[in-house]
Amino acid sequence: MYALVGGNGYVGTAFQKFLTASGLPFQNVSRAQLDYYDRSQLTQYLKDLQPQFLINAAGFTGRPNVDACELQKTECLNGNAVLPGVLRDVCEDLKLPWGHVSSGCIFTGEKPDGSGFTEDDAPNFSFRQNNCSFYSGCKALGEEVLNGAEQCYVWRLRIPFDEFNSPRNYLTKMMKYDRLLQARNSLSHLGQFVESCVACWTKQVDFGLYNLTNPGAVTTRDVVGMLKSQRFHDLEFDFFDSEEQFMQIAAKTPRSNCVLDSSRAVSAGLPLSPVEDMIEQSIRNWVE
Amino acid sequence: MYALVGGNGYVGTAFQKFLTASGLPFQNVSRAQLDYYDRSQLTQYLKDLQPQFLINAAGFTGRPNVDACELQKTECLNGNAVLPGVLRDVCEDLKLPWGHVSSGCIFTGEKPDGSGFTEDDAPNFSFRQNNCSFYSGCKALGEEVLNGAEQCYVWRLRIPFDEFNSPRNYLTKMMKYDRLLQARNSLSHLGQFVESCVACWTKQVDFGLYNLTNPGAVTTRDVVGMLKSQRFHDLEFDFFDSEEQFMQIAAKTPRSNCVLDSSRAVSAGLPLSPVEDMIEQSIRNWVE
Repeated sequence: MYALVGGNGYVGTAFQKFLTASGLPFQNVSRAQLDYYDRSQLTQYLKDLQPQFLINAAGFTGRPNVDACELQKTECLNGNAVLPGVLRDVCEDLKLPWGHVSSGCIFTGEKPDGSGFTEDDAPNFSFRQNNCSFYSGCKALGEEVLNGAEQCYVWRLRIPFDEFNSPRNYLTKMMKYDRLLQARNSLSHLGQFVESCVACWTKQVDFGLYNLTNPGAVTTRDVVGMLKSQRFHDLEFDFFDSEEQFMQIAAKTPRSNCVLDSSRAVSAGLPLSPVEDMIEQSIRNWVE
Repeated sequence: MYALVGGNGYVGTAFQKFLTASGLPFQNVSRAQLDYYDRSQLTQYLKDLQPQFLINAAGFTGRPNVDACELQKTECLNGNAVLPGVLRDVCEDLKLPWGHVSSGCIFTGEKPDGSGFTEDDAPNFSFRQNNCSFYSGCKALGEEVLNGAEQCYVWRLRIPFDEFNSPRNYLTKMMKYDRLLQARNSLSHLGQFVESCVACWTKQVDFGLYNLTNPGAVTTRDVVGMLKSQRFHDLEFDFFDSEEQFMQIAAKTPRSNCVLDSSRAVSAGLPLSPVEDMIEQSIRNWVE
């Protein structure tokens, strides 16, 4: 039995769906049942539940977007930096293996040769670089807090997308936004992401840090091209002239755009297909 | 009636002593009574208590020193960055004026002309500068979280000392440590610090940020000279050759040494005497 923290969020819901479809029993650990920030409450709860593995899909991302975190700093720190630390303490105490959904948004750009950042590269979009949103800063602190954690996976998600129309789906966002920013990014197909997370445990992959992005990278114009040619032929897309204009008009806090290298995950046998394939498949199977 | 959060710590105890001596009624808000990290519990508690002013003297400093925070990052974030944000939300909601004990340790060094940093200078020893201890990073985040807070004082304490022998007293530390690091610092006499905090409210000083250090700055050798000449004639003091040697031998994480400018506080009429006077007085009145 799996324990799932944050099961009702966007990522958590995808975990629920995958676990259900795979016939893997799980228990949602929700704040309605207990205050899971309280070490003793959570410890007692998990002692009773006896899960074999815990998944932390909880996080504070801001609504409608990351700008909101600039105004909800406490919640952002608490959800993204403190909670992973509480879970670490409790899981280590109980000797319970677990995994934490982190984010690739603690990086910006790509390597000089165009390749992606690996798990050995230090985050370059964080408080310590003083160039980031409060959200990215908190996610990077969350990884610092987990540095050296025992029996722990840290899974980096990066711009989720899939075939299901949703305000959090990157493809939906592209079609909904008035104007787009041209940038090159690695992305995570949400279904493959959660499948890869669970596979870490079921396949007994080594504990540690994994970039769970689909191999490769795409530009905003690449994705627009796929959307138009494959399905949404009549949609018009408008672009900002520059990142400066984007920051001036549309954003309050800097956004991460980055390329990640997921070869560690792929070498471990995790099911991550090339990003273009998964975007095409998502558009082909699009569900309104 | 005052509400005092963190009343049992080193700084909190000094608040209790001063409030008692001044005949100002107060209520300790302790975690034994309620989980004050829980907004709704704290809100209800304060609605019942009806304090006129709240003092937050809670913080996580690490035992025996700031190095411990490197191993207790979750507690450090929670106590120093999240809690101020929770208190802000609750106090703003209740329209309750309040004050938060921050720290001058989010600065390092002094201005090129030897003068101190003012409240208008941005912290230069923080995550954003990537040069600090985890403790200083969290204290600086705590101030970020309080940026723009309504009816709120932020009081910076810096290396507390007084006449009472205690492991947290700077003068005790100087006499107890095997070797000292030569550095120039502003300091806060703990009694005058808490008196100044309370005076902010009783004298209706403008809300905002205050460096509550005693005017001036002293070097470690200055203080050693005063200790030896005035009372502890036979004590021997040994010094590290350099900050590099100190970091190599005695410390796991960088220490803040800094000069602060407290003229805003002094202009507001807060009772802060020159630092040399208060050191001399503390040594003269030393209580074992």
